[in-house]
Amino acid sequence: MNLDYNKTALLIIDMQKGFVEPGAALCVPTAKATIPAINSVIDKCREEGAKIVWVKREYAADGSDVEIPRRKALEESGLLGVLAPGTTGINSPEDAEGLMPLEGETTIIKPRFSSFLKTGLDEMLRSEGIDTIIVTGTTTPNCIRATAFDGISYDYRTIVVEDCCSAKTEEIQRVNMEDMARVGVEIIGSGELIK
Amino acid sequence: MNLDYNKTALLIIDMQKGFVEPGAALCVPTAKATIPAINSVIDKCREEGAKIVWVKREYAADGSDVEIPRRKALEESGLLGVLAPGTTGINSPEDAEGLMPLEGETTIIKPRFSSFLKTGLDEMLRSEGIDTIIVTGTTTPNCIRATAFDGISYDYRTIVVEDCCSAKTEEIQRVNMEDMARVGVEIIGSGELIK
Repeated sequence: MNLDYNKTALLIIDMQKGFVEPGAALCVPTAKATIPAINSVIDKCREEGAKIVWVKREYAADGSDVEIPRRKALEESGLLGVLAPGTTGINSPEDAEGLMPLEGETTIIKPRFSSFLKTGLDEMLRSEGIDTIIVTGTTTPNCIRATAFDGISYDYRTIVVEDCCSAKTEEIQRVNMEDMARVGVEIIGSGELIK
Repeated sequence: MNLDYNKTALLIIDMQKGFVEPGAALCVPTAKATIPAINSVIDKCREEGAKIVWVKREYAADGSDVEIPRRKALEESGLLGVLAPGTTGINSPEDAEGLMPLEGETTIIKPRFSSFLKTGLDEMLRSEGIDTIIVTGTTTPNCIRATAFDGISYDYRTIVVEDCCSAKTEEIQRVNMEDMARVGVEIIGSGELIK
């Protein structure tokens, strides 16, 4: 597709063990299956010289940095400690099995749904002349969509790779993709990008 | 419901002629029918002393302040001039028929989907000790949802009044309400609020 990779950043969002590995407390069941497509997009973007940004979420072990309206539910669900910084294993913020950042690639921790909120991402991309973002990862209705809407709001050409994103049900995935398309997000398949 | 109105702001979003009146270029067909419910919520919130905030969108007549990825589509659809500041009539940014801000209530113009983006809304509410927002208006998948997700992200107790919001189809309305509920937004009916 028509894309200037020198002005493009690929975002890989929340593809962490705690969200992806089967059996993890916050597992999005279809996320694991998107890894081969995500890797094909990563390979293409590396080859073409795009900026690679790994976007991750962490929750303080005591829940103190979680959105206030979500804290109680997190506590009551026994989820405190999940995605805690520095932990390892199935509920940790480590990269999901099969995904591997390279030296020199960027990692940012986002404290909220959108990759742009309180992260400095917009300033970083702008300072490097980037005007296009490719969005991949999980979960479609939360961090993918919030990032895509902010991408449009911050005037980026915003591309979401549908088969590199995942949601709890097929209906959620479909309706969210349709909503994003209606505000100008380009929804594509990984095959279209890498061919 | 359990609500401290002294710490609550009611947001009425994009209920403007250009989005609401039948025949308007950007009309959300079901928006007009939500006005009685919105007025009942406004009455209750005024009576209880909540802060009333009218949130509106405008598009410069030449499209120069529209999100870059949306500008071309707006031009090609012949929509330039719709919601232009200072205009009147069916495609204008004026309040929809049947809605009436009172002297002393706040109006803000938001340049993007979320009421929080580039508006100073968060700083304003915080400085007044407000920790709860009630969200009403149109359209559910865009400005309502973007505002609700940012409400949660900025740590506000966030309440969306379902029958005071509208979308193009029943499926879009339902799936968006479900998505919002899953991240901690309280989805209620106007009857629950005003009783």
